[in-house]
Amino acid sequence: MMQKTLSGKTEVKVRFNEADPLGIVWHGHYIRYFEDGREAFGTEHGIGYLDFYKHGFIVPVVHIECNYKRTLKYGESVIVETIFVPCDAAKLKFEYRLYKADTMEIVSTGSSVQVFLDRETSLLQLINPVFFDDWKRKFLQM
Amino acid sequence: MMQKTLSGKTEVKVRFNEADPLGIVWHGHYIRYFEDGREAFGTEHGIGYLDFYKHGFIVPVVHIECNYKRTLKYGESVIVETIFVPCDAAKLKFEYRLYKADTMEIVSTGSSVQVFLDRETSLLQLINPVFFDDWKRKFLQM
Amino acid sequence: MMQKTLSGKTEVKVRFNEADPLGIVWHGHYIRYFEDGREAFGTEHGIGYLDFYKHGFIVPVVHIECNYKRTLKYGESVIVETIFVPCDAAKLKFEYRLYKADTMEIVSTGSSVQVFLDRETSLLQLINPVFFDDWKRKFLQM
Amino acid sequence: MMQKTLSGKTEVKVRFNEADPLGIVWHGHYIRYFEDGREAFGTEHGIGYLDFYKHGFIVPVVHIECNYKRTLKYGESVIVETIFVPCDAAKLKFEYRLYKADTMEIVSTGSSVQVFLDRETSLLQLINPVFFDDWKRKFLQM
Repeated sequence: MMQKTLSGKTEVKVRFNEADPLGIVWHGHYIRYFEDGREAFGTEHGIGYLDFYKHGFIVPVVHIECNYKRTLKYGESVIVETIFVPCDAAKLKFEYRLYKADTMEIVSTGSSVQVFLDRETSLLQLINPVFFDDWKRKFLQM
Repeated sequence: MMQKTLSGKTEVKVRFNEADPLGIVWHGHYIRYFEDGREAFGTEHGIGYLDFYKHGFIVPVVHIECNYKRTLKYGESVIVETIFVPCDAAKLKFEYRLYKADTMEIVSTGSSVQVFLDRETSLLQLINPVFFDDWKRKFLQM
Repeated sequence: MMQKTLSGKTEVKVRFNEADPLGIVWHGHYIRYFEDGREAFGTEHGIGYLDFYKHGFIVPVVHIECNYKRTLKYGESVIVETIFVPCDAAKLKFEYRLYKADTMEIVSTGSSVQVFLDRETSLLQLINPVFFDDWKRKFLQM
Repeated sequence: MMQKTLSGKTEVKVRFNEADPLGIVWHGHYIRYFEDGREAFGTEHGIGYLDFYKHGFIVPVVHIECNYKRTLKYGESVIVETIFVPCDAAKLKFEYRLYKADTMEIVSTGSSVQVFLDRETSLLQLINPVFFDDWKRKFLQM
């Protein structure tokens, strides 16, 4: 079975208060940019945080990773590219690429892994939620 | 009936990521320092956020005000003085004074007002919660 | 001399991480929404933070005030209306009104005051920067 | 040459505004706790951010990684253990372990890598700053 690569892009303006005393965006804020990208992807493709919630699941992040390649300054805009990474385990994986909006130079790469918990019992789900399997079939199969 | 003035002090270290490109703490973070002060006061005197919650109330902030007199830099520490302001209405009022920890120069003054909502119904309470009236009698009367 | 009222509107999506354990936006984040509004106004009308900086000035906030009237939840969007308030003193005053994007119900009102410091010497300016007086003549006179 | 393991511990109280609508600390804030740990270690052992700065270097983070094992709630305190990881390359490596302060259950593990830039020229340093090599000899050799 071949699979399509599903990704989305969103633009985030650097806020004044996100830059640190060096005049560059503090590294911790990139995690927020990743989340902005993941949210935009989720809204666009119907697997946002609230979609999971509606189906009875919460999807906490269990792993995050970020590589910093260029700095971002106040006044700049960043393009967040979010790529869905299919996997067999009951996990939700994304990769991220951040670019400067004006030059498209790469700023950062990273990834996140989320798991599925039952909203009521907080129990870890060892198989994918049905609606998520349906979503994968519908959107990823070529 | 005379009343005592009840206040508390707590120290907060300025975090690297709280300073902006000018090298000084971004003005929005002072609201967080006020909250740090209010929390320390609440923990010390038994009227913290979780005390209200335990008695069935949430206490959202409905007004906040801050005057900025000196700047704070990364590497500095700030003393937050939190003063309880008694009032007849069903409200929780605090005043704040921020000082540089090393020189005790005044950095900022401000105030906050909170109201009481029933935790379950979210209904605004027009009279003080009983445990809060008890607290006031016990702690403020001379 | 009659003056026009100059204002601008911008939309901000509530981020997941801006909502607190009550599920509503933490009150301190409204200060960030005000800044988003001020920045959008500044960019639109040519008196943004970087415009002042380019002319040799920094414009620190010396007073902020916020009234909270309705709560905001994750998933909602907020419209920030920023109104320029002309004043004779060497100050930069704005008023803010936050609305729910879908119903336009009022969420919050507030205001900020900024002063002008020389970028190099940090000296407080007792008269308006010339480019700002020019801007006021150009944009506000009817 | 045998080396000692150098580490430090600091305690951080979870702030109300750091918990998200699920009532648990938003995953992005752990990066801040790592920084709190790194700062405490740096202050204790004389290789803090400002020590590098004083010697002419800035030390931007180029890689961060975090694994989430347990959740943290408002009202809890977290112990941040910061472990210096010696390496031959001109890099500054730390590992982190977060524990619940009351039970010492593990909450999170992670790591960070920083590089050395000349403060004036922003040039990447391919060999360790002399003062940092001196520090390593003094503190790590058995």
